[in-house]
Amino acid sequence: MLTDPALAELRAVFAGRLSVSPAVLAEHGQSESLVAAGVPDAVIFPASTAEVAALAVWSSRHLVPLIGWGAGTSLEGHALAIAGGVAVDFRDMAAVLEVRPDDRLVRVQPGITREALNRELRATGLMFPVDPGANASLGGMAATRASGTTAVRYGTMRDNVRGLEVVLADGRVIRTGTGAPKTAAGYDLTALMVGSEGTLGLITELTLRLHGQPETVMTAVAAFPGVGQAVDCVMATMQMGLVPARIEFLDVETVLACNAFSGLSLPPAPQLLVEFHGHPEGVAEDTRRFRDIAEGFGAEGLQWAERQEDRSRLWAARHSAYRAILASRPGAKAVVTDVCVPISRLSQAVGETRADIATSGIPGPILGHVGDGNFHAILMVNPADPGEVAIAKALAARMADRALRLGGTITGEHGIGFGKLGHMAAEHGEAWAVMGALKQALDPLGMMNPGKVVPG
Amino acid sequence: MLTDPALAELRAVFAGRLSVSPAVLAEHGQSESLVAAGVPDAVIFPASTAEVAALAVWSSRHLVPLIGWGAGTSLEGHALAIAGGVAVDFRDMAAVLEVRPDDRLVRVQPGITREALNRELRATGLMFPVDPGANASLGGMAATRASGTTAVRYGTMRDNVRGLEVVLADGRVIRTGTGAPKTAAGYDLTALMVGSEGTLGLITELTLRLHGQPETVMTAVAAFPGVGQAVDCVMATMQMGLVPARIEFLDVETVLACNAFSGLSLPPAPQLLVEFHGHPEGVAEDTRRFRDIAEGFGAEGLQWAERQEDRSRLWAARHSAYRAILASRPGAKAVVTDVCVPISRLSQAVGETRADIATSGIPGPILGHVGDGNFHAILMVNPADPGEVAIAKALAARMADRALRLGGTITGEHGIGFGKLGHMAAEHGEAWAVMGALKQALDPLGMMNPGKVVPG
Repeated sequence: MLTDPALAELRAVFAGRLSVSPAVLAEHGQSESLVAAGVPDAVIFPASTAEVAALAVWSSRHLVPLIGWGAGTSLEGHALAIAGGVAVDFRDMAAVLEVRPDDRLVRVQPGITREALNRELRATGLMFPVDPGANASLGGMAATRASGTTAVRYGTMRDNVRGLEVVLADGRVIRTGTGAPKTAAGYDLTALMVGSEGTLGLITELTLRLHGQPETVMTAVAAFPGVGQAVDCVMATMQMGLVPARIEFLDVETVLACNAFSGLSLPPAPQLLVEFHGHPEGVAEDTRRFRDIAEGFGAEGLQWAERQEDRSRLWAARHSAYRAILASRPGAKAVVTDVCVPISRLSQAVGETRADIATSGIPGPILGHVGDGNFHAILMVNPADPGEVAIAKALAARMADRALRLGGTITGEHGIGFGKLGHMAAEHGEAWAVMGALKQALDPLGMMNPGKVVPG
Repeated sequence: MLTDPALAELRAVFAGRLSVSPAVLAEHGQSESLVAAGVPDAVIFPASTAEVAALAVWSSRHLVPLIGWGAGTSLEGHALAIAGGVAVDFRDMAAVLEVRPDDRLVRVQPGITREALNRELRATGLMFPVDPGANASLGGMAATRASGTTAVRYGTMRDNVRGLEVVLADGRVIRTGTGAPKTAAGYDLTALMVGSEGTLGLITELTLRLHGQPETVMTAVAAFPGVGQAVDCVMATMQMGLVPARIEFLDVETVLACNAFSGLSLPPAPQLLVEFHGHPEGVAEDTRRFRDIAEGFGAEGLQWAERQEDRSRLWAARHSAYRAILASRPGAKAVVTDVCVPISRLSQAVGETRADIATSGIPGPILGHVGDGNFHAILMVNPADPGEVAIAKALAARMADRALRLGGTITGEHGIGFGKLGHMAAEHGEAWAVMGALKQALDPLGMMNPGKVVPG
């Protein structure tokens, strides 16, 4: 609990970079989804790793939890202070520290957002491709093991974080990883920290892999006669060894919402939005092969958009899909789901989920990063209607159970926070207790983002 | 210590699958390199996960260490029983349990070797690409976080292990990962186990990512006027965004040894051995672009081998390079080194290493997986000459220090075992203590491969 003497100590160090104003606290107590809020007792805006380390020492002494805060775009309550404590907002630690074009690496502070990073990289010919849709902070993306539309080719945060600086619960500062492309030197602490959601430490610096901006980019939208054909086309594409940079599924409801919201005129049918990156010769052949596969599944009107503005319009619409869907039911709040299954079970998973939603009476458009077997249903409820909320939560729980039954995972990219905590035992069995033992080893007082990820 | 009652208990369970014969013990007490031997007190050949779990319970009760054993090809003493104990030889757990072509996954037991696995996969059109040269076991490769010639395109074991079954020190059996291509559900225990060298548990099953056998493969050897040009060509190739399936460097000494050993007639110059995989159109353009880059660095006589037998001959020679080098100094033993640096520092690292070796009087050909910044010097010594051994070990230590100074790692792919333990503090600082804390959390009695990886 944050006592007055503890607060006074903080104030002496952070002065104007500490806030207890109700507006600031409230802002750090909400999230994008229906997950119940938890308001912190104070918000700190640290300016350096040393300050974060001092905070950790202070936290251990006063037994006040620390909860990292990036852009506030997580969907399972990851950054909410459900047990009180201090939100550590990395707003002022958002610099690009070093660009190393020869090694395709960049060193950044955790508060920088992916859009800001890519703006800074534009002139280098390099890019950071991981794209969860939201303009999240890189520290948050690493903590959540985020991915998104481009993971099918470029990987998730697991694959694109080369190294970290982390402040541990006791205030020690460690560095993980090296500047070399690979290492076999001991336990993979980088991978342990990526996806740990601030429960093992606070990330204060990241070294990220960069990729060349593609020489050629081709994007297409293909309409399919039914959901099954669209999803089977994805499976066939991956099995043929084609590697799209993105391959996204939109069901009819999503397409209609995007048409209305973003002024598109896509045909009212399930669609795949696909993109290839590479040199012109490789991409030309990729697109030829994809066309053959897609037409085999009944795709119609496949048109390639090579012009930047046409592509941007399509992807902007895709990125607005969440807002478009919400706008299709005014006043609604969303229960956002996020399951991921083996590609071979994708068709079954999407089919059963659609049928389940259809009988529920809740609108629930489906879209997803289907090249990875990952999809979302956006279950729209009237937040004032506890009956609807309960129905949506039951649907979401059945989606998680279904994903496990099909050999998949309860979350492809959104993470656990506390929203998915109830499904962890089912996914991991005894391995969940092992996660708890690791947490206990690194944070015995339980001050790093308590109530998240591990058994309570 | 293995007492008579403890041994009797084992014998009751394992009968003929337990050996204490001096020949079998000695076989499990040697390794491929100069690392000093450690002979186990007994060798067990378990037949199931349940038996391995029972062994772990037995080990905790009698305080006898367990050391996993695959193919015995590790280079830093990973599998040596330096504190006594029981070698757990996975020879009889070497089955392919399930091939899932639609998901490009295979489930195997840890004792299967990579060559045996690829033989079993041949008819499926799929392959497991990680290739450390030696015909290692998959369990050992995962435990060591192995990589090799193809990591530049297909990644290391970090990237290609989707999930594991692991027996923990207390006999609990956990499963990590899922069949889905990605997950954000909690700590990445798969990545924690990969590279932990049997110190956190014994791997009893692996789910591995497979890749399509490439439609087109083009291989070339290119001779360069000097080491600097060859290495700079690699850097330029990677920076241009070309993704070779392999790009290997051989210095003149290595080339001469391979010519003599494998009956090749490569020109006596530093060489790059490069390979591209893909569809014909993509590979044709890749090879065109690589030729332009290589010729810009003075490459001569670049010839593409598309025929399977020509390619096989080249790669067989590359895989025999270690034996070829040893054969060039009869009676010699090798101190094998394994450093990895950022690509931008590769030229400097190789140059300084060559100069250091040249003044030492010890023959030390250099070769490596340079697309990853990873290279080896094979320091050949007369094992009966302590002076030579000392010079080679000092050279190896300076290579590790140099790699760290240049922002790299003390081992790209061979791992730590106990041979590299002395460099861990320099690479990891406080993070090494964190590895120790994780070990303590999962193996408080220190029975899983003691004396390796973590602080003693």
